Amino acid sequence: MSFQAHLESVVAQVEGALACSVMGFDGIAVETHQVPAAEAMELPTALVEFTNVLSQLRTAADSLKTGGVEELCIQTEKLTTVMRLVSPEYFLALAIKPEGNPGKGRYVLRITAPKIRLEL
Amino acid sequence: MSFQAHLESVVAQVEGALACSVMGFDGIAVETHQVPAAEAMELPTALVEFTNVLSQLRTAADSLKTGGVEELCIQTEKLTTVMRLVSPEYFLALAIKPEGNPGKGRYVLRITAPKIRLEL
Repeated sequence: MSFQAHLESVVAQVEGALACSVMGFDGIAVETHQVPAAEAMELPTALVEFTNVLSQLRTAADSLKTGGVEELCIQTEKLTTVMRLVSPEYFLALAIKPEGNPGKGRYVLRITAPKIRLEL
Repeated sequence: MSFQAHLESVVAQVEGALACSVMGFDGIAVETHQVPAAEAMELPTALVEFTNVLSQLRTAADSLKTGGVEELCIQTEKLTTVMRLVSPEYFLALAIKPEGNPGKGRYVLRITAPKIRLEL
């Protein structure tokens, strides 16, 4: 199964999902699947910003007793973004509409991350 | 109902909850309720770090089309932390064990935030 097929499957399973990407910690998407409604959201700009936050948390985790970061969920007025680490270099990012189901999104990313890891 | 009573109610309602605080954006807790098991986690250090992340996202939101930040959820190996904005100056932070229920935590913070806001 290709990256693209996994990403399409994530978007299809999660109510309100707009886009799902395999991303590097430089904020650049390796592969993305998005629905047409996602165009107006300027998702790439938001994802670069959110990637910076995830990087910062990963660095901070070294000095905290809370262990490494596994997942980050950012809810803003117009978008909920769930990010889950896949490997030290890559993570999955899923953008969901406010009326979507982030709980389902978190679950689907958790089961999809190991499948993506196998193909990296 | 005092802050303390609201915080105790949040911790009692969420499975695996370790501590709940009303916090300022300077990373200082206004009021906290925590269970004894939370002592070993060095939560205040982690919360200062996570507050920085929330502040950064709030600043970034001005330039993003995704709207203002409402909630941030950070899952690390040993701790899940849910933060929800109460006002421009304050937010609620809830620390939960990995085996706890962050979905319930998000729900309880969402209904508790307006009650806290009324008392600020």
